[in-house]
Amino acid sequence: MTDKKYDSADTGLLLVDPYNDFLASEGKLYPYAKEVAESVNMLEHLKKIVAAVREAGIQVFFVPHHRFEPGDFSTWKYPTPYQLSAAKAQPFAKGTWGGEFHPDFQPQEGDIIIKEHWSQSGFANTDLDHQLKVHGISKIIIIGMLANTCIESTARFGMELGYHVTLVKDATAAFSHEAMHAAHEINGPTIVHEIFTTEELIKALGDN
Amino acid sequence: MTDKKYDSADTGLLLVDPYNDFLASEGKLYPYAKEVAESVNMLEHLKKIVAAVREAGIQVFFVPHHRFEPGDFSTWKYPTPYQLSAAKAQPFAKGTWGGEFHPDFQPQEGDIIIKEHWSQSGFANTDLDHQLKVHGISKIIIIGMLANTCIESTARFGMELGYHVTLVKDATAAFSHEAMHAAHEINGPTIVHEIFTTEELIKALGDN
Amino acid sequence: MTDKKYDSADTGLLLVDPYNDFLASEGKLYPYAKEVAESVNMLEHLKKIVAAVREAGIQVFFVPHHRFEPGDFSTWKYPTPYQLSAAKAQPFAKGTWGGEFHPDFQPQEGDIIIKEHWSQSGFANTDLDHQLKVHGISKIIIIGMLANTCIESTARFGMELGYHVTLVKDATAAFSHEAMHAAHEINGPTIVHEIFTTEELIKALGDN
Amino acid sequence: MTDKKYDSADTGLLLVDPYNDFLASEGKLYPYAKEVAESVNMLEHLKKIVAAVREAGIQVFFVPHHRFEPGDFSTWKYPTPYQLSAAKAQPFAKGTWGGEFHPDFQPQEGDIIIKEHWSQSGFANTDLDHQLKVHGISKIIIIGMLANTCIESTARFGMELGYHVTLVKDATAAFSHEAMHAAHEINGPTIVHEIFTTEELIKALGDN
Repeated sequence: MTDKKYDSADTGLLLVDPYNDFLASEGKLYPYAKEVAESVNMLEHLKKIVAAVREAGIQVFFVPHHRFEPGDFSTWKYPTPYQLSAAKAQPFAKGTWGGEFHPDFQPQEGDIIIKEHWSQSGFANTDLDHQLKVHGISKIIIIGMLANTCIESTARFGMELGYHVTLVKDATAAFSHEAMHAAHEINGPTIVHEIFTTEELIKALGDN
Repeated sequence: MTDKKYDSADTGLLLVDPYNDFLASEGKLYPYAKEVAESVNMLEHLKKIVAAVREAGIQVFFVPHHRFEPGDFSTWKYPTPYQLSAAKAQPFAKGTWGGEFHPDFQPQEGDIIIKEHWSQSGFANTDLDHQLKVHGISKIIIIGMLANTCIESTARFGMELGYHVTLVKDATAAFSHEAMHAAHEINGPTIVHEIFTTEELIKALGDN
Repeated sequence: MTDKKYDSADTGLLLVDPYNDFLASEGKLYPYAKEVAESVNMLEHLKKIVAAVREAGIQVFFVPHHRFEPGDFSTWKYPTPYQLSAAKAQPFAKGTWGGEFHPDFQPQEGDIIIKEHWSQSGFANTDLDHQLKVHGISKIIIIGMLANTCIESTARFGMELGYHVTLVKDATAAFSHEAMHAAHEINGPTIVHEIFTTEELIKALGDN
Repeated sequence: MTDKKYDSADTGLLLVDPYNDFLASEGKLYPYAKEVAESVNMLEHLKKIVAAVREAGIQVFFVPHHRFEPGDFSTWKYPTPYQLSAAKAQPFAKGTWGGEFHPDFQPQEGDIIIKEHWSQSGFANTDLDHQLKVHGISKIIIIGMLANTCIESTARFGMELGYHVTLVKDATAAFSHEAMHAAHEINGPTIVHEIFTTEELIKALGDN
């Protein structure tokens, strides 16, 4: 192991929910995130980070949300109002284009696909913690969608599990500017180890 | 079991971090939360809820933060900046008045004291999930401090674990009004089942 | 809820690894378990329990092992010797007959398929705890293969998680009689709530 | 990090339940384990390993069972028969000599005391996984009492969590020889990475 801040031996990139429905202009949820996403140039930053991370030999983990199916939650005792409204909208529906990974974020050989998470945290009810451990990962960089829901919950769980956690505030988006502000200016600083811009992250990836 | 929304057979109250340092006017952290706490009349509401819950026969769980000690985190590989600053300030320090439960929130016979949590979630690295399960609890009402850190993380974990989760927006506080807004207007609605005022909660506790 | 020991409102059946490779006479692993399986009349008992449980309206959960694929574990830091030998033998291989559920144990409408577990415990790195909770299940009956590995680990995790756990000693098998003995006479009594025969379980399912 | 099998940078020793009631000749449970313990010279081996591990600079974690108190489990929905019989016997009772660590196994400065576990696994409902992670530990050596209950459950959980797990078959004991046999000859080989004698472990600790 070297003295690099993000050594490929112990760093992993978590790419959360890179679905067409979130990232493509025709995606079901894209309209809600469009204004924020474009204001931070999200798509370009996601691509830059994935390229830089692959170049650095850092392991990539896909962390996908449950792909919706008709009947989801219908037998649950207590679905949340948010889950029920998602079940109605059926984003990332199983077997649809919206539930495919965006063309710019296709898994490459050696990438690891984590089991689908039911709600927000990529760690909850999945093998993410296990896959990180068996691959020797102790530092995670979390990018993707949405800043204050899946990204923040994955960060909260990751910190509590003992991981070093990095957020990238212009490689994510949200349904409002105040949700982004909450994630990166209010809550993030109480949770994670680093909150970088894409530029800062890429510089750190190259540092010795 | 009756048709009550909050039946004593399956509902638990989680009282998070009711320390002097958070709730008493001479407490170390009270000055930071004072403005928000007083603006929602937090202390009065906490007392009302605890009384109503005891009256209803609902099980009370104390969910306490780690009581700080000198040297905390000094051997950890990756403490967060937030943890390091807390280690410096030593809130709820072990063996001090600030680390005692506030006089108005003393455990009564039959209350359950959960193991101390290291960071924000009352579920992380503690026996909270286990104690809820062995007592048959599937609905949790979370009150105490702080709205956007320990309360929100406990809510996020609770929902992912499958619990029905209720927040009470005037029985908590935060270090800023925007942090309260983030907890109850931005993030809360994506996470939990109910966000009540104290008055609404107390009404619901009595409903059949 | 009635006073029945196993009420359909809070009881779930966990059917662990009902693969052709374990249960069918041509299955890859059947030869190793054959002697024990036949000595307790396992297949007949599994069928009887599934029928009785469906009749009682009890929720069925399929708890499947990871279906092996070429390359499994090759990037893991520390695969166990047991995992490496399984990776070589490729039981329940993805896309093969051996990795299909046995014809007598096909999922019916309303059954829940839990995410595949990597090693032994059906709870580890899966959504089993979550699915049990959201369906209101607090009592689990665990049957299937093998008594001292997946069944016992699932039982150990289930008890620690706060579930009421029932084993059925003639609705499982192992690679040796002493492994069965270890599971049901040595370890089981320190872990679970009930260890029944199929006959005793079916009687209990009907009791009021 | 060197090429040593057990490098101090990533190895931890888990000392499970080193209570007087288990290890001292006047201890409440010692009579039940005495025959097996003496047959493998357990106490001597535990001492040798702890000394060797300290010499090697390996982090020591105390992993203590819940210290019993009157009333334990009385409000639980489903205590196990085994828990109820323990609640009656009150081993390692809080505030008693039996619930103190044996004089030969006193915590030294820098040792970490994990939160008490309620049942068998040192990981369940405690901060063990978290403490291992924040100290960079990925390999665990588990010694103490009892081979087929707390040691085996801690090993089963540790493996599922992604740790490299080592058992030491003459640095533990059980209530019968067949329970030892089950732990080390039947179940252990399906779970862990190494099953050593004390002599083999100490040799491996010194190897480069």
